[in-house]
Amino acid sequence: MPKKPPPGPRDERGVLSARILAAAREEFAQHGWAGTTLRAIARGADVDPALIYHYFGSKEGLLDAATTPPARWLDSVAATWTTPPEHLGVALLRLMLGAWADAEIGPVLRAILLTAAHEESTREKLRRVVEGSLMGASRVGADEQDRRVRSGLISSQIMGLAMMRYVWRVEPVASMSEDDLVAAMAPNLQRYVDADLF
Amino acid sequence: MPKKPPPGPRDERGVLSARILAAAREEFAQHGWAGTTLRAIARGADVDPALIYHYFGSKEGLLDAATTPPARWLDSVAATWTTPPEHLGVALLRLMLGAWADAEIGPVLRAILLTAAHEESTREKLRRVVEGSLMGASRVGADEQDRRVRSGLISSQIMGLAMMRYVWRVEPVASMSEDDLVAAMAPNLQRYVDADLF
Repeated sequence: MPKKPPPGPRDERGVLSARILAAAREEFAQHGWAGTTLRAIARGADVDPALIYHYFGSKEGLLDAATTPPARWLDSVAATWTTPPEHLGVALLRLMLGAWADAEIGPVLRAILLTAAHEESTREKLRRVVEGSLMGASRVGADEQDRRVRSGLISSQIMGLAMMRYVWRVEPVASMSEDDLVAAMAPNLQRYVDADLF
Repeated sequence: MPKKPPPGPRDERGVLSARILAAAREEFAQHGWAGTTLRAIARGADVDPALIYHYFGSKEGLLDAATTPPARWLDSVAATWTTPPEHLGVALLRLMLGAWADAEIGPVLRAILLTAAHEESTREKLRRVVEGSLMGASRVGADEQDRRVRSGLISSQIMGLAMMRYVWRVEPVASMSEDDLVAAMAPNLQRYVDADLF
């Protein structure tokens, strides 16, 4: 169904909707689905609550938009999976470090991880993001079951790094250089990609 | 300051306080610190709110009690760190899998991870639990900095497994047997314990 044209010029819409999304990520992460009101988000974004309905339709629509990574994230994931398998450990780690450092993608990933702690539909979305980004390893594994196990192990290391470094900020992992992390961690990821595991 | 004797017989106190703690873990994890009321916890535990004050003193005291692992958890952690370094990969993984399967320890760990997503004092406690349990690796590393880096890497793998398997329940990691997990993952932990990383 086509949406009504936005009020005001196009770039104003972009600015306002980015502000609403940033405020929404903060509120949903802090207070969960049930504890978050559109009024509080409107206050955080300094906009009229009616504008949130106008742009996103509903609280559900807003949560969905706030936790959906931009399309170019999917592009970079797809590009990473074309890496020759023997370099996938490094490539997956660089993909993840780059995504978190990205001003558009990082906050979305953070919102997903924080909100997934207490909101089942976001937990479901997290599973889809993990499956879609870290488990699309069609070139990994001898068969479907092997591929799924290897992708799950890769995910467990990547997501653990994300929680320690970006969400909980536990030192020294939070402050290690990207190069040090790649040196220390990529061989472990590579083992999950192609070593004999069992 | 000595506490007043509990109302009712000793085992009744144990039963009621365990029920209050279980309800508190659920509420704090779901609704965060600000969104949780002692009244809701009392309702969940089917007790009078006054009893919560009587047992735990305050909302702060209750959160603290709900997210403090039992003392025997610290004992098993200390015992694990006496394992010969060349077996630490397996030992740490078994420690963690055993703790999550434990009816008393598992719910506390879960409450810490879920509540840490949106409550700073619990995030601080998580850092202390990680440092105290996974980073007490005095026999690991060539010096203090090396020990901290290795412990951080070990933690990132262990905590990632915990999130994937027990909190987000992403398959197939959530359902893999403990033996399969040990076979697949312990060599990676062992590399963080004693291999050349940089």
